[in-house]
Amino acid sequence: MKTPAIVINFKAYEESLGKKSLELAKMAEKVWKEKGVTIAVAPQLVDLRTIVSEVEVPVFAQALDQAQVGAFTGFTTLQAIKDAGADGFILNHSERRVNLSLISEAVNHARSLKLISLICADTADTTGAVSSLNPDFVAIEPPELIGTGIPVSKAKPEVVTGSIDRVRRVGSTSKVICGAGITTAEDVRAALKLGTVGVLLASGVVKAKDPLRVISEMADACL
Amino acid sequence: MKTPAIVINFKAYEESLGKKSLELAKMAEKVWKEKGVTIAVAPQLVDLRTIVSEVEVPVFAQALDQAQVGAFTGFTTLQAIKDAGADGFILNHSERRVNLSLISEAVNHARSLKLISLICADTADTTGAVSSLNPDFVAIEPPELIGTGIPVSKAKPEVVTGSIDRVRRVGSTSKVICGAGITTAEDVRAALKLGTVGVLLASGVVKAKDPLRVISEMADACL
Amino acid sequence: MKTPAIVINFKAYEESLGKKSLELAKMAEKVWKEKGVTIAVAPQLVDLRTIVSEVEVPVFAQALDQAQVGAFTGFTTLQAIKDAGADGFILNHSERRVNLSLISEAVNHARSLKLISLICADTADTTGAVSSLNPDFVAIEPPELIGTGIPVSKAKPEVVTGSIDRVRRVGSTSKVICGAGITTAEDVRAALKLGTVGVLLASGVVKAKDPLRVISEMADACL
Amino acid sequence: MKTPAIVINFKAYEESLGKKSLELAKMAEKVWKEKGVTIAVAPQLVDLRTIVSEVEVPVFAQALDQAQVGAFTGFTTLQAIKDAGADGFILNHSERRVNLSLISEAVNHARSLKLISLICADTADTTGAVSSLNPDFVAIEPPELIGTGIPVSKAKPEVVTGSIDRVRRVGSTSKVICGAGITTAEDVRAALKLGTVGVLLASGVVKAKDPLRVISEMADACL
Repeated sequence: MKTPAIVINFKAYEESLGKKSLELAKMAEKVWKEKGVTIAVAPQLVDLRTIVSEVEVPVFAQALDQAQVGAFTGFTTLQAIKDAGADGFILNHSERRVNLSLISEAVNHARSLKLISLICADTADTTGAVSSLNPDFVAIEPPELIGTGIPVSKAKPEVVTGSIDRVRRVGSTSKVICGAGITTAEDVRAALKLGTVGVLLASGVVKAKDPLRVISEMADACL
Repeated sequence: MKTPAIVINFKAYEESLGKKSLELAKMAEKVWKEKGVTIAVAPQLVDLRTIVSEVEVPVFAQALDQAQVGAFTGFTTLQAIKDAGADGFILNHSERRVNLSLISEAVNHARSLKLISLICADTADTTGAVSSLNPDFVAIEPPELIGTGIPVSKAKPEVVTGSIDRVRRVGSTSKVICGAGITTAEDVRAALKLGTVGVLLASGVVKAKDPLRVISEMADACL
Repeated sequence: MKTPAIVINFKAYEESLGKKSLELAKMAEKVWKEKGVTIAVAPQLVDLRTIVSEVEVPVFAQALDQAQVGAFTGFTTLQAIKDAGADGFILNHSERRVNLSLISEAVNHARSLKLISLICADTADTTGAVSSLNPDFVAIEPPELIGTGIPVSKAKPEVVTGSIDRVRRVGSTSKVICGAGITTAEDVRAALKLGTVGVLLASGVVKAKDPLRVISEMADACL
Repeated sequence: MKTPAIVINFKAYEESLGKKSLELAKMAEKVWKEKGVTIAVAPQLVDLRTIVSEVEVPVFAQALDQAQVGAFTGFTTLQAIKDAGADGFILNHSERRVNLSLISEAVNHARSLKLISLICADTADTTGAVSSLNPDFVAIEPPELIGTGIPVSKAKPEVVTGSIDRVRRVGSTSKVICGAGITTAEDVRAALKLGTVGVLLASGVVKAKDPLRVISEMADACL
């Protein structure tokens, strides 16, 4: 996945379900085609297969429950995500923390399935820990800023730079993106200036009055 | 949903993912068309929307995480299931137990969305408890028999009849089906004889050499 | 346990740990001795054994993880609670929801161990469901009122009376207490007037400036 | 804590509850006094305070739920463990996995409380990840060997040496112990030869016919 990248997490919002999910994904695709900036989308699980088949931008699952197939009623596996055509997955978002063993197994297994792994962390310390597993991306998101509109890149720049530093110190190949409170092109610019390769955001686009404009401006900030 | 009914839980098996999911669902539809017996299917979440659009039999989600929409990364909501076109959902399977508050909220909210609720329970006592919430169906499944091929309808008939008794005693309108170890038409017949309105099964069909034959024979047992 | 009863949940507050736990329990004992009203306490797990050996009032564990002994690192079992000398346990508090199977197993097993079971529920519906298992007590606590100082007995009397009604309708022998927002003697009086046999409260006593006075006045409300 | 060390996890066994917990801890103390080898014990939470006050060997809590005090019914906090007099805690055992944020918060907060942190991990990869947080100890335990009597130090030596290697590679100060299947003095010797500073074991001692003899022989293996 080419960076800088903007990853849009659709969460379980009403504004990003079904038809609206497709509309948002189409906006992401439009901006990507116009500007050449990677705009990835993470739709709800029931929409995953449809979005994959309808748009060309990278598509991520928002989570998974289990690395391996088996007798697990209601569980979404790495294989299911791959079969649905997803390019990758988000894991360990602060709204759905998982244990370290699943993170490790998913990251390792993702490599053989050629799926992009994007693991969330909440502090510089936990960013260091998950980056030692060498996922493709680590997203540093202080949970107290999520959904606030107060961008981590401005409110807690030291958490972002500290996270990047930890990744380097454990000798990891992971790239760092940041999230929480990202709502404007300026926030994206600040994030990149701090040394990240992109942003993870949700309500800033999904709940925006004019999502296309927001995505477009954020893409400009990446040029 | 007309009863007797056979509900096939696809779990997270490799044999029931993607294309294979559709093949299994088509078999269910074929038997339903030939014999008029309800054969419902519960595919994996990533396959839900496809199966709904491709077959006419009742389609259930295998689980849900949250009754209401919102900022819940990786969560599948009742609205998502409804939007995907599902007819109903399974909840509280022994492989994915949830708390009582979610069961209650899902059952209540399902009524307004016209979704069929099928709640699993593991004993006569817990069947009584969940049936007091009046879900459409309660599936009694002793977890120690799941996947064994030893049918609950034969190994523990008293759990099945005890469950039916509890449903009546708490004044519930729920219908009882049973599961765990169901692999043959005879198991289905035994289940119906005990007073249930159907069965919930998984590996008995999904892992069968000839799933169509198994479904077909089980349907005959319902006539 | 004689009713009306006041059950004080110490939660994981700093003000109710170790020495302070004993001080609070001694206050409960003092009021009980003076007025003959049941004041039960639910200390933190590490304090359970000490409180049991130092005071004569009923002592409850705040939770348990597992009904049976075994290879469960970090789990507190029913046997551990019994061995520690506790009189009973709270289970399914909204801050630590558990699944229905554990509730059922704990309630059943508690009878043979002569432990008092007190199960929390959040709505009239879930009160009905858990009361069908016939625990000794069901505590109805709307989570949105917990810790607010807005008493359920005044803010949502219909939830309390509705809960009592459900218990009767499922033919349960459980007694109903109520909680959430209880901070004054008047709140206790209102709770009893609605037909409950007591209250479950935490910060109203633990965080009070003069806990002894609060307990004492609440006991008066029970006379 | 002086190393080599033998850490005995009492789990939730009947053989290690209450009076029996004290007997086991006294055996540990006896061997420690005779041979000068560190024998630490991890009793059940309800026994923690008693064991601390009755024996002089290091005492660990088997788990904790929350780093900070507050309105958390049924949760055991780091402060509660400290107040009970424990020397440290085990966290993330495969029987009670927790998320990475709690591990990180507990390790950091433990330093200021002067509590020893011992974090379990299941593979070399996850050992590397948790060791980047610099807990005092990391215990590598392949879950498939726990309780089998097949010692990790013999069955999977490469997992143990691989774990030690990862700890070094991420620049961690953590010491490595190993566990799973450890039942004899020879297993302990093998563990130390691989470069660990001790072992974590449970049934090998708790379920032994003559626990004192087992502890004593294991201590000899450390001399």
